[in-house]
Amino acid sequence: MTKRALYTGSFDPMTNGHLDIITRSSKMFDELVVGVIVNPNKKPLFTQEERVKLIEEVTADLHNVTVECFDGLLADYVNKNHFDAVVRGLRATSDFEYEIQMAQMNACLFDKGIESVFLMTSPRYSFISSSMIKEVVSLNGCVDGLVPEIILKEIKAKYTN
Amino acid sequence: MTKRALYTGSFDPMTNGHLDIITRSSKMFDELVVGVIVNPNKKPLFTQEERVKLIEEVTADLHNVTVECFDGLLADYVNKNHFDAVVRGLRATSDFEYEIQMAQMNACLFDKGIESVFLMTSPRYSFISSSMIKEVVSLNGCVDGLVPEIILKEIKAKYTN
Amino acid sequence: MTKRALYTGSFDPMTNGHLDIITRSSKMFDELVVGVIVNPNKKPLFTQEERVKLIEEVTADLHNVTVECFDGLLADYVNKNHFDAVVRGLRATSDFEYEIQMAQMNACLFDKGIESVFLMTSPRYSFISSSMIKEVVSLNGCVDGLVPEIILKEIKAKYTN
Amino acid sequence: MTKRALYTGSFDPMTNGHLDIITRSSKMFDELVVGVIVNPNKKPLFTQEERVKLIEEVTADLHNVTVECFDGLLADYVNKNHFDAVVRGLRATSDFEYEIQMAQMNACLFDKGIESVFLMTSPRYSFISSSMIKEVVSLNGCVDGLVPEIILKEIKAKYTN
Amino acid sequence: MTKRALYTGSFDPMTNGHLDIITRSSKMFDELVVGVIVNPNKKPLFTQEERVKLIEEVTADLHNVTVECFDGLLADYVNKNHFDAVVRGLRATSDFEYEIQMAQMNACLFDKGIESVFLMTSPRYSFISSSMIKEVVSLNGCVDGLVPEIILKEIKAKYTN
Amino acid sequence: MTKRALYTGSFDPMTNGHLDIITRSSKMFDELVVGVIVNPNKKPLFTQEERVKLIEEVTADLHNVTVECFDGLLADYVNKNHFDAVVRGLRATSDFEYEIQMAQMNACLFDKGIESVFLMTSPRYSFISSSMIKEVVSLNGCVDGLVPEIILKEIKAKYTN
Repeated sequence: MTKRALYTGSFDPMTNGHLDIITRSSKMFDELVVGVIVNPNKKPLFTQEERVKLIEEVTADLHNVTVECFDGLLADYVNKNHFDAVVRGLRATSDFEYEIQMAQMNACLFDKGIESVFLMTSPRYSFISSSMIKEVVSLNGCVDGLVPEIILKEIKAKYTN
Repeated sequence: MTKRALYTGSFDPMTNGHLDIITRSSKMFDELVVGVIVNPNKKPLFTQEERVKLIEEVTADLHNVTVECFDGLLADYVNKNHFDAVVRGLRATSDFEYEIQMAQMNACLFDKGIESVFLMTSPRYSFISSSMIKEVVSLNGCVDGLVPEIILKEIKAKYTN
Repeated sequence: MTKRALYTGSFDPMTNGHLDIITRSSKMFDELVVGVIVNPNKKPLFTQEERVKLIEEVTADLHNVTVECFDGLLADYVNKNHFDAVVRGLRATSDFEYEIQMAQMNACLFDKGIESVFLMTSPRYSFISSSMIKEVVSLNGCVDGLVPEIILKEIKAKYTN
Repeated sequence: MTKRALYTGSFDPMTNGHLDIITRSSKMFDELVVGVIVNPNKKPLFTQEERVKLIEEVTADLHNVTVECFDGLLADYVNKNHFDAVVRGLRATSDFEYEIQMAQMNACLFDKGIESVFLMTSPRYSFISSSMIKEVVSLNGCVDGLVPEIILKEIKAKYTN
Repeated sequence: MTKRALYTGSFDPMTNGHLDIITRSSKMFDELVVGVIVNPNKKPLFTQEERVKLIEEVTADLHNVTVECFDGLLADYVNKNHFDAVVRGLRATSDFEYEIQMAQMNACLFDKGIESVFLMTSPRYSFISSSMIKEVVSLNGCVDGLVPEIILKEIKAKYTN
Repeated sequence: MTKRALYTGSFDPMTNGHLDIITRSSKMFDELVVGVIVNPNKKPLFTQEERVKLIEEVTADLHNVTVECFDGLLADYVNKNHFDAVVRGLRATSDFEYEIQMAQMNACLFDKGIESVFLMTSPRYSFISSSMIKEVVSLNGCVDGLVPEIILKEIKAKYTN
């Protein structure tokens, strides 16, 4: 029986922490969809199209991974597309508290049998967040090894424009 | 591709919290093995054979679930038997800290591609532990709804003998 | 000696988590005042009057519960009205850290003998927050059982207008 | 309506942290019983009788406080004696996790209407525990201001015998 | 070998919690620079010049303490000025999670040998934050003993203007 | 002014996590003493002499590091030897709660001016503990890269004898 999982985020931009979770999840499930959240209230650094294209490039060699956009309620998207699981990365206690709250709310909203599944972020990526990456690059700091090289080039381009 | 997962514990005794994780995991993976830890240093309430038999009875209607015993290093057992994932239930922050430490140690010990996967315990079982169940029953307290009925009967029998 | 307690919040809207704390507190104290915080800097979904009226309807059968509005410093309101205790609901670690900080600040500001008192939110309501309720309803998700029925009807009305 | 609360502990020995919670609780409730837990499996520094006597001496001027011993299941004792509330002191996150688990288990075991109520320990006592006091005194360290003077004298007497 | 440390913050305004960390750090290092963060995106209560002057007044008797302003990336400032350590005060778990994330990011950005060093805030200041101080004073609440007297006078002046 | 720090532990055995803290601390202070705790109540894997000798070998190239043993109250040892600081490594929230409690107790016991100073453990060692190392090696698991090589050889020797 084919098992399909969803991994969502803003990915503005995708970091090596995200890539680590995607790579590992892609081995646990038959298909993995990376769902880029479209939030009309936030002004992202990268457009929705740019984010999708960058994730596709970086995950090109993971053959069961596809990238999609979605807006609205996560549970609606998950139920309509009959996913088996939603994958989340866990970094620290503060993540954990928020995640347990979301998972329990979603347990009410997801169709029966759809699970929230958590992977622990690798220690070497545990301190990375998209916003910290943007802040450091905007101030000319070095984030080598923390984001995929293709993406680092694009972040720098954004801030030098 | 068949995905096989392992869910381990002392299960002395199995609670409805354990059963919740087993039921949900059995739907996410093609096969689920419940691994009963044999710890020669601890004096359990139920023997290894009793624990296996009770879990088999309670999970009889979950057709892709089997019960096994193991001792020694978890990673050896997992690597030798080529599991794809080890499932863990998460209850609270203190669990989380211990679990993240174990998951990161196991990431060093597991063969590449084997993952530690976490499910959040349902809120209504989040406060249950085997030791608390034993303490309450031993003092004649009521734990209806917290352990499977067959098992409750056996715990009571242990304490009235 | 009559003991009077205060339970404050924005209640925008009141959830079943709030109602659980109110019901339980009303049994512990001789009188319980539900204090609706008026925050001129926030744009609430429900007006102050609507929130008071909804809480009064939902708590109509709790005879020692009254609803009031207040603004300014909590400690001033508490001291002036000679409450014996301020009741707070605790949900999770992140709540706890904030709450311990507030309780210790208030221990400096409250008149001697006035206490901050904490009740643990029931597990089945531990993941509910007013903002999550609003977000889910605004996206047409289902929150049955998480807010009082009268209030659910009003939230839906707000979002369909 | 008279409200009666119970505050339990091993009190081996009572610290100024315990005394702080007792003093504050005695003002919130009409009657407060300090319940000394008799644990036959632990070898305490002070006998049950000594602990009761010391607490009685230290709380002599709190006229609605009495001291009792109990063993067996807390919930049985609470239900049989028709308490309205069980008071607990909260110190830190690790306390909190354990306490939320106990409170939720007890919500199943207590008669309807009996509540677990939490007070935050004053910051200046937040690091004190009976076992740390015993360890420091046994190594001749100074704990002035951390335990009532009468009790400090008795602890020292124990370790010099 | 002279050891130089940096302690940074917005200090809008400086509290007794900050002063406690500065006083203690000044004894651990040969020189301590208090670095006032200039954040052009935030509208502070006190201007940069006022904050520097107030800290200088309050720390006048700590002879190895100087006050400077900086903007841009912390790591740039630290590397360029060859500090040996950056001192941080830790208050609570939520602080801790944020601080560990920052420390690990900075371990990537700081020149080799520069350390993030943490001191625990004294319990009696553990609940103080600059924003809470401002909120309480703005509502006419009392914060005696929580901020240095000179500074308290200035905060009150700001809110009565 | 010469600054002397103490870093204590059981070091049974020393791990690469300990070595990381020792190396970094030795750069922050003029002298660093590694204090091996002698606990007569615990049966260690390595004798006190073995532990001292192994740490001396591993830290041989850190010229301001010496190794000593001590028993009794930490505060006595620290006060008598006029240390300026006691260094502690922080790994996770559960560490943090215990460490804040110890630091606050020690703030009462240490002579004025002696500080507890915390460094964050590097992410790549954040999951290592001496007891986990011993358990894994005793079960023939691989801990390469987690303990210094000389020490790994000795642990293996202990378990094959």
